[in-house]
Amino acid sequence: MKKIKNAVVAPKGFTANAVHSGVKKRRYDLSLIFSEAPCTCAGVYTRSIVKAAPLTITKDIIAKKAGIQAVVINSGNANACTGRQGMNDAKVMVKEVEKLLKLSSDTVIVASTGVIGLPMPMDKVKAGIHEVVKNLENTQEAAGRAVEGIMTTDQHKKGIAYEFELSGKTVKIGGITKGSGMIHPNMGTMLGFITTDCAISNEMLQKALSDTTENTYNMLSIDGDTSTNDMVVVLANGLAENPVIDCENDDYYKFKKILETLNIYLAKQIVLDGEGATKYLEAEVSGAKTPEDARKVAKIIVSSILVKTAFFGEDANWGRILAAMGRSGAEFNPERVRIEFVSSKNDKWEDSKSILLMSESTPIAFEESVAREVLEKKFIKIKITLEDGDATATAWGCDLSYEYVRINGEYRT
Amino acid sequence: MKKIKNAVVAPKGFTANAVHSGVKKRRYDLSLIFSEAPCTCAGVYTRSIVKAAPLTITKDIIAKKAGIQAVVINSGNANACTGRQGMNDAKVMVKEVEKLLKLSSDTVIVASTGVIGLPMPMDKVKAGIHEVVKNLENTQEAAGRAVEGIMTTDQHKKGIAYEFELSGKTVKIGGITKGSGMIHPNMGTMLGFITTDCAISNEMLQKALSDTTENTYNMLSIDGDTSTNDMVVVLANGLAENPVIDCENDDYYKFKKILETLNIYLAKQIVLDGEGATKYLEAEVSGAKTPEDARKVAKIIVSSILVKTAFFGEDANWGRILAAMGRSGAEFNPERVRIEFVSSKNDKWEDSKSILLMSESTPIAFEESVAREVLEKKFIKIKITLEDGDATATAWGCDLSYEYVRINGEYRT
Repeated sequence: MKKIKNAVVAPKGFTANAVHSGVKKRRYDLSLIFSEAPCTCAGVYTRSIVKAAPLTITKDIIAKKAGIQAVVINSGNANACTGRQGMNDAKVMVKEVEKLLKLSSDTVIVASTGVIGLPMPMDKVKAGIHEVVKNLENTQEAAGRAVEGIMTTDQHKKGIAYEFELSGKTVKIGGITKGSGMIHPNMGTMLGFITTDCAISNEMLQKALSDTTENTYNMLSIDGDTSTNDMVVVLANGLAENPVIDCENDDYYKFKKILETLNIYLAKQIVLDGEGATKYLEAEVSGAKTPEDARKVAKIIVSSILVKTAFFGEDANWGRILAAMGRSGAEFNPERVRIEFVSSKNDKWEDSKSILLMSESTPIAFEESVAREVLEKKFIKIKITLEDGDATATAWGCDLSYEYVRINGEYRT
Repeated sequence: MKKIKNAVVAPKGFTANAVHSGVKKRRYDLSLIFSEAPCTCAGVYTRSIVKAAPLTITKDIIAKKAGIQAVVINSGNANACTGRQGMNDAKVMVKEVEKLLKLSSDTVIVASTGVIGLPMPMDKVKAGIHEVVKNLENTQEAAGRAVEGIMTTDQHKKGIAYEFELSGKTVKIGGITKGSGMIHPNMGTMLGFITTDCAISNEMLQKALSDTTENTYNMLSIDGDTSTNDMVVVLANGLAENPVIDCENDDYYKFKKILETLNIYLAKQIVLDGEGATKYLEAEVSGAKTPEDARKVAKIIVSSILVKTAFFGEDANWGRILAAMGRSGAEFNPERVRIEFVSSKNDKWEDSKSILLMSESTPIAFEESVAREVLEKKFIKIKITLEDGDATATAWGCDLSYEYVRINGEYRT
């Protein structure tokens, strides 16, 4: 497997574009991803019972398995909590793309992200769609535009692509994602769009996506809030001409492994771009009774706002970690907990420092100056060792800063 | 029922005191509440599986029903996650009070609040206990000292007392509480100490406390974090000489109603003193299918940090409210939701203003200037009407400000 350029347009037959339609004040706000060949498609969606209109429409279309060829995504307006009008608007977006690209019915899906509860400015959106279809390309610039067009409070573009072999054929996969607030995915996630030229059935593609979501996007928290619009979709157009993956064979496991790697990469990118984040936090739990217990413990650590503010303050307040673990709902023996912090200046964990804070649930005395040296670095791993079993889990999050409060106190205005 | 002075020392036979033992840098940090007659006693405790030593000790002692006569509480150190030494230290605190006040075994309970994971400075605590027993009084000053001695990041003293009649006898009840961070009680709560001269059996006292906790302390959230030390205890010494309440008779219901009123008052006081809070938030849900659904919806609204930051920014971002409701786990029809904000300059809801934001899940257009007038006031009620049944619930919370981040980034240092 090797990393390559061009994100979602890296796989064969995919092109993309974005324009500024005027839903946002500045910057691209309408993206289109297109495949010249029909795709099998899989999606995971928010578990919130309040679902945005485009999510409902997209779910229905994917279920029809008509061979998806395009995804249209706008940012700046979530088209959520917009009643019947919102459903109509999402459908119009689909129809416009189908018409302009001369595609048959049920081959275009739609996603939105932005403010909840405002009607979609459809004049702007429709005019934008007329523009965006004109300049579909498979260049690095086009991939860049497409990812910019789905960003809201994101500071950085988040995308990646890989190339690998399946049964002697070269296969490519690429993904882009957005999200830096209202991020606490619970099945599905923020917005994520993944393209591949792998030949794989709808069913196996869905299985691979669903199975990898649990340990990737679902283990990520910025602020504990789950969005109404969370969605990750994968489009696979089969142009790599590998033998179609239609059962759990070796090619399936290889593909799934690479999809997982890509999802973890994108999940981490979201955390690194967390609203107002100054620290990257990774909670690594081992020795749990069950994978679910491990996940509960890992996720609550990166979700606790007291833990997050302590890291912002570079305070080795590990008591808050244990307190959060205690309310996680996980079963573990509180008498046998080990807590260690490892830090680094970068995500390659170079020049790392560590400090042991608790062993067998007894606090280890430490010098504040040593703790400070560990905590002043940007990348921090919180290693929790339990003695209840063999299960492990990792969760990703960030600290909670003044800047987070500023961004979210001022977001809509 | 009328409101009276002196909080926990208002009921007959109760005295209190506090001293500065040196666990905290300044201010009182060791409180003692004493009853001249043995008390029946009830407690509710954190549901966290990580429990502080004093909580474990107190729970055991209360279970022995030996007639409680005193509560000793220190602030500045939570004696949590302190291993075997912490258990010993909590026991020593109990034994010291029993010895100095010449009480028999299992008549003193103990509570702690403050930083987690540091060993208790027992020399200071023991010396403090020797001082605090000397000046037990039933004055307003003594009640004030006692509540100050249990405060951590609290800005305001929180206490109340009421007088009422039971079968022709005058009965008094008083309570004090602390807590402005790590507040998201889940059975039991922050620290709360309630005294009464009512004659009531241990069993009925426990029932009254447990039943009222669900709709009072458990409906309150500052930051979503549940403490290791959460505890509310009620001491009843029977000196009012009312007929002992030992079954669910009229006196029981009257007593329970007053206990609930007192608990709601104290719960609201905690919210008003929420770390860094600039707004008081009250989520009032009606029309829910079940009381549990109503509670889930109400509590998630005051718990969502996106909702909290929006109120800090005085932003009518009701979409975040609906988004939070969607992930609450409650069952409701997202197509039939009504959202209204009502605000006031004070908790008497004088001079109130309101704005309707959503009806039948369709956004209502509003002027930003009107929204601003509603949101600039300090007391804000979020009224949610569902159309799924008759159940109601109320939850209390506060906004999330820069100041919260400052307090919690710097707490331990």
